[in-house]
Amino acid sequence: MSRGYIIPIGGAEEKDLDPSILRRFVQTCGGESARLAVIPTASQLATTGPRYVELFQELGAAHAISLPFEDRADCEKEEWLEELRTATGVFITGGNQLRLSTTIGGTSVSEILRVRNEEEGLTVGGTSAGASILSEHMIGYGDEGTTPRCDMLALAPGFGLTHAAIIDQHFQQRNRLGRLLTALAFNPRPIGIGLDEDTAAFIDPEDNLEVVGSGALTILDPSEMEFSSMDSARRHEPLAILGMKLHILTEGCTFDIPSRTAKHPSIANP
Amino acid sequence: MSRGYIIPIGGAEEKDLDPSILRRFVQTCGGESARLAVIPTASQLATTGPRYVELFQELGAAHAISLPFEDRADCEKEEWLEELRTATGVFITGGNQLRLSTTIGGTSVSEILRVRNEEEGLTVGGTSAGASILSEHMIGYGDEGTTPRCDMLALAPGFGLTHAAIIDQHFQQRNRLGRLLTALAFNPRPIGIGLDEDTAAFIDPEDNLEVVGSGALTILDPSEMEFSSMDSARRHEPLAILGMKLHILTEGCTFDIPSRTAKHPSIANP
Repeated sequence: MSRGYIIPIGGAEEKDLDPSILRRFVQTCGGESARLAVIPTASQLATTGPRYVELFQELGAAHAISLPFEDRADCEKEEWLEELRTATGVFITGGNQLRLSTTIGGTSVSEILRVRNEEEGLTVGGTSAGASILSEHMIGYGDEGTTPRCDMLALAPGFGLTHAAIIDQHFQQRNRLGRLLTALAFNPRPIGIGLDEDTAAFIDPEDNLEVVGSGALTILDPSEMEFSSMDSARRHEPLAILGMKLHILTEGCTFDIPSRTAKHPSIANP
Repeated sequence: MSRGYIIPIGGAEEKDLDPSILRRFVQTCGGESARLAVIPTASQLATTGPRYVELFQELGAAHAISLPFEDRADCEKEEWLEELRTATGVFITGGNQLRLSTTIGGTSVSEILRVRNEEEGLTVGGTSAGASILSEHMIGYGDEGTTPRCDMLALAPGFGLTHAAIIDQHFQQRNRLGRLLTALAFNPRPIGIGLDEDTAAFIDPEDNLEVVGSGALTILDPSEMEFSSMDSARRHEPLAILGMKLHILTEGCTFDIPSRTAKHPSIANP
């Protein structure tokens, strides 16, 4: 079986009038036969998990349950692990991504998500903090601003579903271009995906992503980067970065990560 | 074919009187039939590469060559890539690990090292900066001290040969316990390996490591960690970490990473 979809969302996705992202998420997980588990650990609000359960039920999922892992011992609860083993989709809510990594990192929960996404086609999506945690390299916290600076962010291990991208969220709302540039300036191996609010990347099993939602998705592609001054810059100084490629993608645009090819729906396929 | 050895060294390994670590490195790469490539990119000294070439020739390697990748364009030089494709071992020198990641990250050089180590049994070793770069999550820079603090280090993507460990070097000489604890406090998925100078971890294809050299190797094992305050600590505050396991290993000791089992040579096998 092939890898499942990976679906990061930039936070504040529409939930009432036209929840197009959440609807598409449920469809990707099997629609009426979807069995969904919600992980609300990033949030400090007790209502976050039940709210998403209700939304997913309204959108037609066969089964939806919230699994409020509060501490590391919770992450070995057999009953909750069984929900993750039988789910067709898992949704990780917003909040603080370091609460996700410190509570769930290295436990059976993070292992089941990674292995079932990789080998059994499990769909895994998340919004805001839940989007950041999906990749191997995660932005733990950082500063606002468009100019990259050596010490403007902290990278940390995430859940490791993909090595291909570093994901940032609330991208234009919180002015995060600088910190995503900085993340790539350490090592231009992954691409950067910056997600505006109410905007999602549906990354399919072949690592071709499609934009859904009302905002923009910013791609930073460092594959032709010529230079980064990260090794010589002082901690508070701006960084020099030469040759970064930038794409701003809107709904219906696609980006093929392996070939680094962006497409707009109005351009016919060759 | 199985994965090759991964051999991080803590810096300042003995080169003259009894170069036990470098001798064992050459043996692991095939001894008299070893074909070695040295990557001196981390260093700013033109003599670093040739010095190691000379040492490896004195230790009996059939072939040794320095590949001084200076910029990202160098990392696509066909003649040098061919040396990496035919090598039995690659040695990465000390210097600045961010010069390695910014110059070599995402190029054909880093891809060949990762794929040939994983699939073709290529041995890859490195000292100091060359040790840090080997893992997926690398300490880019950081502060001294034994108490972990949220903002005391920067993690960055390395060459990605192993996800199982984060590697630090010059460990007791530069007082780095605090920053390695901090690295694991973000997400207790990998273990921490702290290498004193003139001390190496020979990590075999099954992820069982053996200590060689005159100093100590510190293992931080977070697999039973109960709590990390990383998600709530302020940037300059000390971190709370509960339940970290610590091993101090000396020459001849082993540590099996998958089962998290430390052994001293004086204890008989069961």
